[in-house]
Amino acid sequence: MTGTSGRRVTRADAERLDRSDELASFRDRFVFTDPDRIYLDGNSLGMQPKATVAALHQVIDEWGRDLIIGWRRWIHLPREIGDLLATHVLEARPGEVMVSDSTTVNLYKLAMAALRARPGRNVIVTDDENFPTDRYVFEGLAADRALDIRVVHADPVEGIDPAVVAAAVRPDTALVSFSHVSYRSAAIHDMRRITEIAHATGALMLWDLSHSGGSVRVPLESSGVDLATGCTYKYLNAGPGAPAYLYVRRELSQLQSPIWGWFGHREQFAMPPDFVPAEGIERFLAGAPTVLSMIGIEHGVRLVGEARIDRLRSKAIALTELVVQLNDEWLAPLGFSVASPRDSSRRGSHVSLRHPQARAFVRALIRESGVITDFRPPDIVRVAPVPLTTRFVDLWDGMERLRDLATRGMDARVRR
Amino acid sequence: MTGTSGRRVTRADAERLDRSDELASFRDRFVFTDPDRIYLDGNSLGMQPKATVAALHQVIDEWGRDLIIGWRRWIHLPREIGDLLATHVLEARPGEVMVSDSTTVNLYKLAMAALRARPGRNVIVTDDENFPTDRYVFEGLAADRALDIRVVHADPVEGIDPAVVAAAVRPDTALVSFSHVSYRSAAIHDMRRITEIAHATGALMLWDLSHSGGSVRVPLESSGVDLATGCTYKYLNAGPGAPAYLYVRRELSQLQSPIWGWFGHREQFAMPPDFVPAEGIERFLAGAPTVLSMIGIEHGVRLVGEARIDRLRSKAIALTELVVQLNDEWLAPLGFSVASPRDSSRRGSHVSLRHPQARAFVRALIRESGVITDFRPPDIVRVAPVPLTTRFVDLWDGMERLRDLATRGMDARVRR
Repeated sequence: MTGTSGRRVTRADAERLDRSDELASFRDRFVFTDPDRIYLDGNSLGMQPKATVAALHQVIDEWGRDLIIGWRRWIHLPREIGDLLATHVLEARPGEVMVSDSTTVNLYKLAMAALRARPGRNVIVTDDENFPTDRYVFEGLAADRALDIRVVHADPVEGIDPAVVAAAVRPDTALVSFSHVSYRSAAIHDMRRITEIAHATGALMLWDLSHSGGSVRVPLESSGVDLATGCTYKYLNAGPGAPAYLYVRRELSQLQSPIWGWFGHREQFAMPPDFVPAEGIERFLAGAPTVLSMIGIEHGVRLVGEARIDRLRSKAIALTELVVQLNDEWLAPLGFSVASPRDSSRRGSHVSLRHPQARAFVRALIRESGVITDFRPPDIVRVAPVPLTTRFVDLWDGMERLRDLATRGMDARVRR
Repeated sequence: MTGTSGRRVTRADAERLDRSDELASFRDRFVFTDPDRIYLDGNSLGMQPKATVAALHQVIDEWGRDLIIGWRRWIHLPREIGDLLATHVLEARPGEVMVSDSTTVNLYKLAMAALRARPGRNVIVTDDENFPTDRYVFEGLAADRALDIRVVHADPVEGIDPAVVAAAVRPDTALVSFSHVSYRSAAIHDMRRITEIAHATGALMLWDLSHSGGSVRVPLESSGVDLATGCTYKYLNAGPGAPAYLYVRRELSQLQSPIWGWFGHREQFAMPPDFVPAEGIERFLAGAPTVLSMIGIEHGVRLVGEARIDRLRSKAIALTELVVQLNDEWLAPLGFSVASPRDSSRRGSHVSLRHPQARAFVRALIRESGVITDFRPPDIVRVAPVPLTTRFVDLWDGMERLRDLATRGMDARVRR
């Protein structure tokens, strides 16, 4: 990585990387309340943009001042923020993205829409490393319908081999669905090739973008993707439980959500007796948008747009390369192994490190060292440096504290 | 009403009612930014409690400061606020109520759960005056399943006659679902009797409480209600698009949501491959709770609890009686009629007034007089005085401005 390979990396190297980091100033756009904390969990909950704090205070004032009149503005938020996402994050066209519900509910709506658009096909193909809620949603659908879930095996580190998908997708397949970036290993899956495989037999393709939106390129339009959804509270820094987004390819705008709600009606406020779906992607809305939780998405997306995905991606590669290198130097002798792809072009913005005492290390890191990572059962420490907010020295220091802890751990200090 | 019947009501009467109003001081607990505005639309979007502003600022700070650690507290909110709702608003038992998604999504989840719990029955009974999204949800289910919607006729003013329900509910009926208080006429439906009718043939009963929760008694447990949902942004003053709540009777806790999500899993963070629903009502959660939008529910519910439903109800009756009386004196000669029950025991917290120029009047009232009511097609002005925030003089003044406008309207001033 950047000239340090071949010799031991030092803190001075990390400082040098920070000095030449063209995204360094973005850190000033975020709230930092504890100078001693090192936050390496931005892929669970992103940090707080200062602009969002101001926007939240403003919408609180709007509610108090404008009351019902505020809806004249708020009612456009799902589409307006959707278009921002399309432009800055998702490489999609205006009118193809909408903020709506949670990722889980969107997965349900989109999968049901796909199943109904492919009558006579009764298989959903997914993988055994997909995020739990994705697998649960499909399992729930199978419990209610004449439907089989065909679970292909993904390599726990390298992710999904397109050849394995090609062998599983057949004319019985209505829907193929994977995560673009694995929540566990950070493996990036080949969006274009896998989408082509799905289409070759006439299946529809649904991608979960939760770990890719805002961290890697998401070429929805050019890859021919049909359907997608993802969360906004990770790399888009929209706040705890901020609503998700969904994408429906323009050419599929006749698809229909299974949940027919008033916000998806063509003439919502005429309140006619029968449901007529909206012409556009609004048809996938159900109930009232959660205005206060939605506000944070706008500035999170604008920050990503201003930083640009290509620059975020370059810095993420440099950051994660540093994790891998420090692992190899410091942690491998202590029993750690890298459980993410070593090829940086195939790895998203975090690195998973495997160790039998991972759970204890993550807890002790928070309690004793102010370093926040996260644990994924049974043995993974997820280290997620975020390009907008993480300095190379922060990462260096955090890894050093993990090394120190693990060294002591070898003395049974943290075995519990 | 309170001694004024039999003679013309004066503004002094309204002032006297305010002086003797034991809930008058609750007005000070809410944000008022425009002293000239008269807000009679609290059943569309409730006013803003000052305590909620403070709580929102606090949760914004928590996100910025605690980041992922904040979830140690936030993850309990859906259940904790649910229990507050059970105690103060819904006459339910702890563990039977959960904050979750929108009313629309909850209607879908609960209706699907009911259908799956009544295999072999293929009818949902609802009524032609039910809120649009309720009807659309059932229509959407029927489009996907071998299912019929049996729509009973409700009187547009007096609401649903239980005898009509009894004639429609048969052994083929899986689910009976109505709104407890009509969004249009404010008719209160007989929760206990209609629930008994549903149960007599083995159907499940689902109530939409959007216009009753926080405004009238909602005796879920004693009425034997199976399922319910309702919104929080009307009489519970939780903020624009605040999430809804759902109720599942404790004895039915084995029912299952169709949307199997990670927040409904028994061991969410163990992330095992297969879905195992939580023991309690958490099984009806799907994705991550919208933390910022959820915070407002707590203080809204606490205010209702402090004011007490019985006192809110008494004041609501006095307020709506004043609307009826002023209509009869001032508006009836101008072509208005009351489209809500005249029997106050059968009427919720708003009064619908019918007039062919209703739409123009509602618009002109806002623009010219700062009086906010709302319009429901084709010809209804909904006047919703809210006991926590509306003074009798406000209502008197608002009605006077409507009278003045309608008088001019008779001169074709507002005909458009």
